[in-house]
Amino acid sequence: MMIEDCLNVLKEKAPLIHNITNYVTVNDVANILLACGASPIMSDEPEDVEDITTICGGLNINIGTLHQSSIKAMFLAGHKANQLHHAVLLDPVGAGASRLRTETALKLMKEIHFDVIRGNISEIKTLVSGTGTTKGVDADAADAVTEENLDQMIQYVKAFAAQTGSIIAVTGAIDLVADAKKCYVIRNGRKEMGRITGTGCQLSGLMTAFIAAQQDNMLEAAAAAVCTMGLAGEIGYANMQKGDGNSTYRNRIIDAVYNMDSAALKAGAKYEIR
Amino acid sequence: MMIEDCLNVLKEKAPLIHNITNYVTVNDVANILLACGASPIMSDEPEDVEDITTICGGLNINIGTLHQSSIKAMFLAGHKANQLHHAVLLDPVGAGASRLRTETALKLMKEIHFDVIRGNISEIKTLVSGTGTTKGVDADAADAVTEENLDQMIQYVKAFAAQTGSIIAVTGAIDLVADAKKCYVIRNGRKEMGRITGTGCQLSGLMTAFIAAQQDNMLEAAAAAVCTMGLAGEIGYANMQKGDGNSTYRNRIIDAVYNMDSAALKAGAKYEIR
Amino acid sequence: MMIEDCLNVLKEKAPLIHNITNYVTVNDVANILLACGASPIMSDEPEDVEDITTICGGLNINIGTLHQSSIKAMFLAGHKANQLHHAVLLDPVGAGASRLRTETALKLMKEIHFDVIRGNISEIKTLVSGTGTTKGVDADAADAVTEENLDQMIQYVKAFAAQTGSIIAVTGAIDLVADAKKCYVIRNGRKEMGRITGTGCQLSGLMTAFIAAQQDNMLEAAAAAVCTMGLAGEIGYANMQKGDGNSTYRNRIIDAVYNMDSAALKAGAKYEIR
Repeated sequence: MMIEDCLNVLKEKAPLIHNITNYVTVNDVANILLACGASPIMSDEPEDVEDITTICGGLNINIGTLHQSSIKAMFLAGHKANQLHHAVLLDPVGAGASRLRTETALKLMKEIHFDVIRGNISEIKTLVSGTGTTKGVDADAADAVTEENLDQMIQYVKAFAAQTGSIIAVTGAIDLVADAKKCYVIRNGRKEMGRITGTGCQLSGLMTAFIAAQQDNMLEAAAAAVCTMGLAGEIGYANMQKGDGNSTYRNRIIDAVYNMDSAALKAGAKYEIR
Repeated sequence: MMIEDCLNVLKEKAPLIHNITNYVTVNDVANILLACGASPIMSDEPEDVEDITTICGGLNINIGTLHQSSIKAMFLAGHKANQLHHAVLLDPVGAGASRLRTETALKLMKEIHFDVIRGNISEIKTLVSGTGTTKGVDADAADAVTEENLDQMIQYVKAFAAQTGSIIAVTGAIDLVADAKKCYVIRNGRKEMGRITGTGCQLSGLMTAFIAAQQDNMLEAAAAAVCTMGLAGEIGYANMQKGDGNSTYRNRIIDAVYNMDSAALKAGAKYEIR
Repeated sequence: MMIEDCLNVLKEKAPLIHNITNYVTVNDVANILLACGASPIMSDEPEDVEDITTICGGLNINIGTLHQSSIKAMFLAGHKANQLHHAVLLDPVGAGASRLRTETALKLMKEIHFDVIRGNISEIKTLVSGTGTTKGVDADAADAVTEENLDQMIQYVKAFAAQTGSIIAVTGAIDLVADAKKCYVIRNGRKEMGRITGTGCQLSGLMTAFIAAQQDNMLEAAAAAVCTMGLAGEIGYANMQKGDGNSTYRNRIIDAVYNMDSAALKAGAKYEIR
């Protein structure tokens, strides 16, 4: 299946996605899910999450603002989603920035099977090494995937995919989406997206919808989500007016997802397969 | 009193509204309350809510993201608001989607008097039958109020209003706002509002302000809130520019409430009384 | 150092700011921090906050929606930030509106050293007197700082600064930012900012970034934050189009911070030193 077809399948299937996510960017996650044709539902109360995940097609676990009760909810929902063979994604926000975040992400990976793990390079390196070096919730510049270290980073990500059995999606200036054998190298997006809170969280929500809609084709679906988000960032930026800044840019990106169709995605997606 | 006069009364009274609501759409609820001339305050900590509700004129209880502590807070605040004869509204978000949501909504209805219960048709049907059939937080298409089943649905909603002693507001393509004897049938709004997260939550906040400002005239006040929100949806949509999508549409709807006056509401409200 | 230089220093230092803040306006706080060149991180789980605050340069404590666990987190993070000599700010949202809010603010002030306390005049008066008179989260009109009572209010704020050892920032139609000896009287901003939820919370986030970036010059830094926010309110308002309201205005203010440079700040800041 081609990348651009994944968007059509998503719109047709319109999956319901359960999000256990941080309270900082949750509204934008809900709106981007609606923008792409999916439906969001949020629940992080242990007593509620198993019922909620049961009626959904995918589960998005984001550790951005952990609470004792939401951690419990993540394990309960994750086990239930695994049992039901739902698509499950982990966004290890800030892994490496605190012991609780690092340990929670590692413990989740041990007990729950994640179809995709999506983070910035510093977060992924923390998960690989088991210890943290992250500076806050943004990637450390020293860690970046660049044209110079690209071959090496592709091997690194494929190896982690092989080890975990998960698709690994590392997003940054160059994005990598890989399983053990195949890596999409994606060059959509703009650096100004980093000045908006939660573009990573939004991508994780969007990606969960893409993989939930096509569970037999998750690698392409995950790559399609990255292309869609990056291209929306480019389109949104092209629509910026004088005086606009990061708050309006946030709206314009979600709007661009809302208006995107497979023809636009086909024309705008910039990727190679390695 | 005419529907359009309710907006003037609301702006004059400018009530303070206590919201125990979900963390997904809470910012939009706050901004729509400010847009209509009311003031919002949020508190869901059991130790805080009785004090907060005491200084307010209305209480908006929305079960969108329940926590054990916020459930306790709902009962404490609800009892206090009843005791003080404040206007109290229930938004049973996702009733039918999980046991916890259904049971919490039913238990709240048993212990607290709600002046208005506002939900989509699937949520209201869950409350009527006591068991759930909701698909996520959106209404099931099979449940919809249509021109074909309108007479029957008006009777259904009036009967539930008679049984509960609450005004029942069912929102969808056609909106019904009824007490035991009188039903407003409202045809404002646009289907694209369903692609924005929390337009229902926003309406519940707005409606609490309308009824808090005119407790002797709650049925008209609740209907006026529905007309205001639906008309704002129409005006907001008419203001959409090329490239705009659901994120910008959200802003334009709240903006339209901010700019609405009683003349615009009079000209744009589309309702009949049955 | 001049007010306008503070913005350059902030952009150069780009501090990471830990926010324990309410879930109503948290997304806007994150985006305004990114707009000014700083980075936000949110965490209010007691087990997480000490690690998180350790990697940051400043701590913003906002009591807008208290929970039992977030109160614990405030004390843990505050002690740790004091120990590390980080910049620490208190925003006593709704102090005076409930016993829990008033007592928590007073207890925080007793145990934690705050470099700045920023609130509306009703909140500050509550902290001075130890008992509450606040009407919700907005200032009582009777309390307002006006041209008529300005001399007296400057003395009042300086006295409270002397007593607490904190810089006191009182925001309203006229803003006062004072230590025991020197008071900035600032006349930027627009009254329409009060119709947006969380402009105060946003200012507190922004101010924490300003003071974290220049700990040797906190009074000027805090005043610069107030001028920046007020001027952004003026610029954002000047950019309003037909049909825009408070939701779009929110975006335009954050956008204006994103686009502000020291030349614009120098040209637009309206203050005197008393």
